[in-house]
Amino acid sequence: MASKEPLVISDKNQMRKWSRRMRSQGKTIGLVPTMGYLHEGHISLIRQAHNLADVIAVSIYVNPGQFSPTEDLSTYPSDFDGDIRKLMAVSGGVDVVFHPHNLYDYGSNTKKTKSGSDNDGVVLSCIEEKGMGHETWVRVENLEKGLCGKSRPIFFRGVATIVTKLFNIVEPDVAVFGKKDYQQWRIIQRMVRDLDFSVEVIGSEITRESDGLAMSSRNVHLLPEERKKALSISKSLLGAKSAAENGQVNCEKLRNLVIQAVSEAGGRIDYAEIVDQESLETVESIKSPAVFCVAAWFGKVRLIDNMEINL
Amino acid sequence: MASKEPLVISDKNQMRKWSRRMRSQGKTIGLVPTMGYLHEGHISLIRQAHNLADVIAVSIYVNPGQFSPTEDLSTYPSDFDGDIRKLMAVSGGVDVVFHPHNLYDYGSNTKKTKSGSDNDGVVLSCIEEKGMGHETWVRVENLEKGLCGKSRPIFFRGVATIVTKLFNIVEPDVAVFGKKDYQQWRIIQRMVRDLDFSVEVIGSEITRESDGLAMSSRNVHLLPEERKKALSISKSLLGAKSAAENGQVNCEKLRNLVIQAVSEAGGRIDYAEIVDQESLETVESIKSPAVFCVAAWFGKVRLIDNMEINL
Repeated sequence: MASKEPLVISDKNQMRKWSRRMRSQGKTIGLVPTMGYLHEGHISLIRQAHNLADVIAVSIYVNPGQFSPTEDLSTYPSDFDGDIRKLMAVSGGVDVVFHPHNLYDYGSNTKKTKSGSDNDGVVLSCIEEKGMGHETWVRVENLEKGLCGKSRPIFFRGVATIVTKLFNIVEPDVAVFGKKDYQQWRIIQRMVRDLDFSVEVIGSEITRESDGLAMSSRNVHLLPEERKKALSISKSLLGAKSAAENGQVNCEKLRNLVIQAVSEAGGRIDYAEIVDQESLETVESIKSPAVFCVAAWFGKVRLIDNMEINL
Repeated sequence: MASKEPLVISDKNQMRKWSRRMRSQGKTIGLVPTMGYLHEGHISLIRQAHNLADVIAVSIYVNPGQFSPTEDLSTYPSDFDGDIRKLMAVSGGVDVVFHPHNLYDYGSNTKKTKSGSDNDGVVLSCIEEKGMGHETWVRVENLEKGLCGKSRPIFFRGVATIVTKLFNIVEPDVAVFGKKDYQQWRIIQRMVRDLDFSVEVIGSEITRESDGLAMSSRNVHLLPEERKKALSISKSLLGAKSAAENGQVNCEKLRNLVIQAVSEAGGRIDYAEIVDQESLETVESIKSPAVFCVAAWFGKVRLIDNMEINL
């Protein structure tokens, strides 16, 4: 079903102007922030946004601020024309695609500076590596630490900062994030609360391939053999969830189910943790709503997945 | 000249509602953030805001997030009724006073947490000390380091964070800050640029007593004798500026003029630095717009002052 073609805006002032015009017309604005290379998971976020807001903005921007220089910024997949086609196929379409070139370029105000974090022993992002003048970062100091924060210490600093920027540019009423990035979703929720953003943050359920693999733009990099092996993540998570529902609430044992299955399939576990759904603190035994979060490498691809366990 | 009584709002949602109503009427909103105990310096900021915006909001909130537990939060002076009288005496008055009780209380969403910074060796603010759930902080990583940042390592983290919160609640078009807090002004400017806030940040000139003392709410704590001695700051800064204008551009020599004068008057220098007006990096010789920044203790009172030097 073909739908309207979205307006594509790359300039941030024009983007804000569009939003303010919509608001002055009494319309509520939904934002779905993405890094592009859209798949069915993104589309499900857009569908959800349609239920919550009058007009929909989708941002497509691969944020260098959340990649360390050694990570896969340069190979992150992109297909802007394909993305637009996919957006046009969504029922109701989207109203605007915000596709900025560089959100850290402040023109004549940009001045090469020393890294801001050089004293703190913090691994730096591609922003500092390029000597851009940007030096303001938003940090959600507790939630950013565990899970993905351990192996990607500047990741959530970059995420919280770019989302702040997008919120300030797009000025949405509601923003939809995928629960696949569970920690990211909780961090954005906390940030919105702590910084008094006037944005409702919605977490949308994980979309999976028919065989259970959580959808991810990075899946495209998996070799066919790796893709099969990667199914061990969702399968073992489902097994652990089911075991918990059948009375096995000992997290050590549940974790071992997943670690063993993924390792046997040839994956390299980054972490497999069962944490409280809100505080993301490790739990030893499942007594309250928990979430089982996994990150593992298959070949050169790092995949994440998770499953909520509500007993 | 008596003026209208300002509307006093303590609830943040009501505050935002007021701003949005004003905006929907086509009015621009000016914000003057203060910690109360208003003096002529604050009034000059409000006058400037009147030139720049249609309606004026003044926030009065002593922000615990920028005080360390050992600093003077508990003795910071306040006089809300007196403040309202002073605001009513301003030509044109002010439209609204935002006077929240506690901007870090998230109600049922607040949960006691561990300190967010315990691993980083960072001195904590009164927020962490009280075990409040707040854990999101905005940091301007370079500019926050020097000058006042050295002796008050969490100060600008607290300032940037509360200003972000105020911007998100009041949603102003323009905000006026005093240049007396020079580093603070530059940090807010940088933060607004880096985080894409849609707020114009204005720096307003220092207001001085007739004898030259920079106005400050903390001056009330100076004993009469200390107050006299404290004049050594502004006098020696003026001397240094005049020396620079007469050809003495060696910063070491200029700094010694001030350090010597303040020390001889019985002040204890925290810092006396000549820095670039934008980067706030120390300069050795004045070749481009610089600012001479001083912090010194007189008795139990820490005072700051500065003078721009544009040769």
